Amino acid sequence: MNITLAQAEKAIAAAKEKAIAIDTKMNIAVVDSGANLVAFGRMDGAWLGSTDIAIKKAETARYFDMNSGSIGELSQPGGSLFNIEHSNNGLITFPGGIPIKNKQDEIIGAIGVSGSSVENDHTVAEAGASAI
Amino acid sequence: MNITLAQAEKAIAAAKEKAIAIDTKMNIAVVDSGANLVAFGRMDGAWLGSTDIAIKKAETARYFDMNSGSIGELSQPGGSLFNIEHSNNGLITFPGGIPIKNKQDEIIGAIGVSGSSVENDHTVAEAGASAI
Amino acid sequence: MNITLAQAEKAIAAAKEKAIAIDTKMNIAVVDSGANLVAFGRMDGAWLGSTDIAIKKAETARYFDMNSGSIGELSQPGGSLFNIEHSNNGLITFPGGIPIKNKQDEIIGAIGVSGSSVENDHTVAEAGASAI
Amino acid sequence: MNITLAQAEKAIAAAKEKAIAIDTKMNIAVVDSGANLVAFGRMDGAWLGSTDIAIKKAETARYFDMNSGSIGELSQPGGSLFNIEHSNNGLITFPGGIPIKNKQDEIIGAIGVSGSSVENDHTVAEAGASAI
Repeated sequence: MNITLAQAEKAIAAAKEKAIAIDTKMNIAVVDSGANLVAFGRMDGAWLGSTDIAIKKAETARYFDMNSGSIGELSQPGGSLFNIEHSNNGLITFPGGIPIKNKQDEIIGAIGVSGSSVENDHTVAEAGASAI
Repeated sequence: MNITLAQAEKAIAAAKEKAIAIDTKMNIAVVDSGANLVAFGRMDGAWLGSTDIAIKKAETARYFDMNSGSIGELSQPGGSLFNIEHSNNGLITFPGGIPIKNKQDEIIGAIGVSGSSVENDHTVAEAGASAI
Repeated sequence: MNITLAQAEKAIAAAKEKAIAIDTKMNIAVVDSGANLVAFGRMDGAWLGSTDIAIKKAETARYFDMNSGSIGELSQPGGSLFNIEHSNNGLITFPGGIPIKNKQDEIIGAIGVSGSSVENDHTVAEAGASAI
Repeated sequence: MNITLAQAEKAIAAAKEKAIAIDTKMNIAVVDSGANLVAFGRMDGAWLGSTDIAIKKAETARYFDMNSGSIGELSQPGGSLFNIEHSNNGLITFPGGIPIKNKQDEIIGAIGVSGSSVENDHTVAEAGASAI
């Protein structure tokens, strides 16, 4: 089970719509079940540095099949996964990465969003993930 | 002058249409005038390894404001640019990367396509670039 | 809107002047609106390790259109952007990186300075940025 | 014996003057005797991809204390240094990199130029190197 390009584009379109609704400019990435990039879009004027962050959030969410922010809770100093960000050529472990599931509740990919506060990033990612 | 996301999505849509017309499955990347990724799409079943190649072809075309294949003609053994591919964290210098110009003939970005023969890659890239 | 080499050299000259005035030896880098290097100078006797730091500070400031130190305030343990430094092949998030704006208040690039205390780095960067 | 920033800036100014005289747009880098970057300038409109190439040419010239093109003659298929470009995070071994010497004929650094044909790159590098 793997996300299709059509599904990924639908997720990005929904995420963009939400980004506009909350007046933000986002980088939005979708990876498949193999954690490989399927689709990406950077809204006009969005931060250049958020391209890599959006992709890494999506990868992180699929690498561990949970929201990127959940990893971040465990990677703090003293935490059980301290500095896990050094693996996989760099993880991003704050909110904005969410697994994407199909109707059978199987994980078929993940979405990563970056460009505003982490709360906004997560909100926009959720809009994208829930469009599938 | 910089390509917009709407323009980049239009280029990818045109490239996809051409890819389907010639029965291929492509990875398609668009970068802006600063050689930063704007949009990307991997068609279902397209080679995973071509994601990075498509992005690097687009970067290469913008890095030197010419088709990626033009660099490759000069980078052969004995050529004036032998092994230029070692620069910029890896160039891809065979066909499939083309600069994108606006109506004033200014370069506003570049498209890179990978997933089939280099002839097909170039054909699909051209369909994308000429849609702007 | 993009910074010119003449403007970048003017920024570096102003930064050097300030560096001498406060008796420091600095690495000074200027990137354009695409976060690509435009000009660089390392003052005699300045730290070798600060070359890469100065460039990364300038990139970081343009990647997120804010002072590099503002990112660092959010990337501390427990902060919303903890370990963001793992993105983009390495960010530097302490002070010394500042966006450069034109008279229309558009961001046309950024300056990064490294070689002394972060307070001095920031002071010198500001002298450079405000010379444009 | 090490090149100063003032000398490096003089070399870049002389190189720029030559670049303008032969109607080219160049990236110009100067490294010191430790092969570390001292100064850099990218002329307006010069190729983005040539920034890294100019720096690598300067490094290559100082790494081996000879013109970058001399390495390239030995790194061809069948040559004694075949694919030496894989070392040092990437060498550039075609012309445009030249050691810089002081009046006592000691090597104090190197200059690397990229942005046109390798013949033009070498010509501009020579103008820079001989200004010291």
